[in-house]
Amino acid sequence: MKKGKQTFELEQPPKIIGAYSTAGPFEAKGNFKEYFDTVLKDDEWGEKTHEKTELKIHKFTIANALDRAKRPIEEVDAMMCGDLLNQIISSSFAARDFDTVFLGVYGACSTFGEALSLASLLISSGNMKTITCSTCSHYSTAERQYRYPLELGTQPTPTSQWTVTGSGCSVLSIEGEGPRITSCTLGKVIDKGIIDVNNMGAAMAPAACETIYAHLNDLGRDPNYYDLIVTGDLGKFGKNVLLHLMEEKGIKLTNYDDCGALIYKTEQKTVQGGSGAGCSSLVFNSYLYKEMQKKNLNKILLVPTGALLSKLSSLQGESIPGIAHAVAIEV
Amino acid sequence: MKKGKQTFELEQPPKIIGAYSTAGPFEAKGNFKEYFDTVLKDDEWGEKTHEKTELKIHKFTIANALDRAKRPIEEVDAMMCGDLLNQIISSSFAARDFDTVFLGVYGACSTFGEALSLASLLISSGNMKTITCSTCSHYSTAERQYRYPLELGTQPTPTSQWTVTGSGCSVLSIEGEGPRITSCTLGKVIDKGIIDVNNMGAAMAPAACETIYAHLNDLGRDPNYYDLIVTGDLGKFGKNVLLHLMEEKGIKLTNYDDCGALIYKTEQKTVQGGSGAGCSSLVFNSYLYKEMQKKNLNKILLVPTGALLSKLSSLQGESIPGIAHAVAIEV
Repeated sequence: MKKGKQTFELEQPPKIIGAYSTAGPFEAKGNFKEYFDTVLKDDEWGEKTHEKTELKIHKFTIANALDRAKRPIEEVDAMMCGDLLNQIISSSFAARDFDTVFLGVYGACSTFGEALSLASLLISSGNMKTITCSTCSHYSTAERQYRYPLELGTQPTPTSQWTVTGSGCSVLSIEGEGPRITSCTLGKVIDKGIIDVNNMGAAMAPAACETIYAHLNDLGRDPNYYDLIVTGDLGKFGKNVLLHLMEEKGIKLTNYDDCGALIYKTEQKTVQGGSGAGCSSLVFNSYLYKEMQKKNLNKILLVPTGALLSKLSSLQGESIPGIAHAVAIEV
Repeated sequence: MKKGKQTFELEQPPKIIGAYSTAGPFEAKGNFKEYFDTVLKDDEWGEKTHEKTELKIHKFTIANALDRAKRPIEEVDAMMCGDLLNQIISSSFAARDFDTVFLGVYGACSTFGEALSLASLLISSGNMKTITCSTCSHYSTAERQYRYPLELGTQPTPTSQWTVTGSGCSVLSIEGEGPRITSCTLGKVIDKGIIDVNNMGAAMAPAACETIYAHLNDLGRDPNYYDLIVTGDLGKFGKNVLLHLMEEKGIKLTNYDDCGALIYKTEQKTVQGGSGAGCSSLVFNSYLYKEMQKKNLNKILLVPTGALLSKLSSLQGESIPGIAHAVAIEV
């Protein structure tokens, strides 16, 4: 049932009956090593290009999530996925190996939130029963597509972030057991005129603020309803921007963090932390999901955030629009 | 209600209460000039780059479709759109100017079908009331992104197609009047190993065949139920491949055509015809929609088709997977 302009309460909440996470070796040096289901030994995983590695990670993660959920592909109504590569090839090529409907979605690093939201609406309404939601990213493919060839050894700027190598997949179903998706708030595109392509946190924080604010308003809910409100990949700088923007709206968040700010250790020198379409899906399907299973976290609001730029749009002088989708997940 | 593995009968069929089409000057020299709502005088429309032109066309088309539908943006639950440019910037940047939820979707030239299908499911189930579905493409942006700089004057091969400059937008709503979307069949990714990036028709025809076959099978329906079965952009060669593949399955289509094969005149030398994410949405929102309004066509099956490659995937030796989504539209 729609509440307000952007929020949907799910009358038949889908459950996340299976989750799987695959992380790169650098990610395993961060804060969540013990939570990752599989950690790669190297960045290539036997593939000739990093794009093929990213595809392999994505396929592997989806297959293992289905295995965890004990659902054969015949019982999966659709796979909903997206990634950062041009024409989302890590997703569409992964779908070749799964005999089910493919629904490609794109919202940059907010894609996991878009997938969870749309899948929840499709399941809650009875149209579908089981859907996989997944995203992936790879440091080496994102760097060369969006920024510079790795071989150049370009220095990061003070507000830059590190694209996560990894993938997470959640299997949503009306049948089975697991944390429930109880509501979602879909995001609008917000553009505050940021043009620095090395400051995604600033570009995305206003969108995250608008979506969280809409979510709380639409449901008449206090932020402390949640054990944790967690954005996707604002990074440490963007996280502070968000806290500031929320305070401007009169809301002081005391239970807030960011997947990108959380994933790496300070000594890993990722500057502001992690980013990438795989960032929020990796952290959710490892750390957050397992902490929910242990009931250390019972109610979270996951808010994947995306910067909707392309390399070409920035070269043509465009600013960087942001978007964020919020998904309430409860044990 | 789900029928078979991939098809959904819509119990509360959304209606297409407004449609708008914007075409480039070359497209207006083709078969549908009198059907286009706006025809550009030149390929630039006052913009400095063709990417900015494509964005302007998309925004203009969405705004005018809403105008036709007499729906202010406050009554629009979401806009669902996608395009061929890297990171679908013609869609996400367009969404900046509309104060509503943005849902980016991507299935290459099948995107319009994915948008119509997902929007129909969201509306039919009562979650949303009004959604805009749109796609766009531009010959000059697609050529330089996927193939060669235009300045090279590269010769087309015998199976190549011409990317349509244009955009189409349909406004779907549970309230109002217009042709109804009565069912949809979502597609799987099908890869028959085609590697020729200048033969999209062959790459996509197997997916179109599988989707049309699933649609007819799932609903126990004869192809002659429809006045017209129309694929997105297989082109003339791909159209013949599809007819052949359907005959192999024991189905002789006598009421079949393809938007790409239809849009241009032979003397325009587009080789196999039109392609691009804007192809099926432009033809549907002009020719097909207006013929349905006149009741010259009462039941059509629109099957936008997509080739899920990127320039990089082909350079790395990957084959070209295809996908197609079928949407039944009835007066």
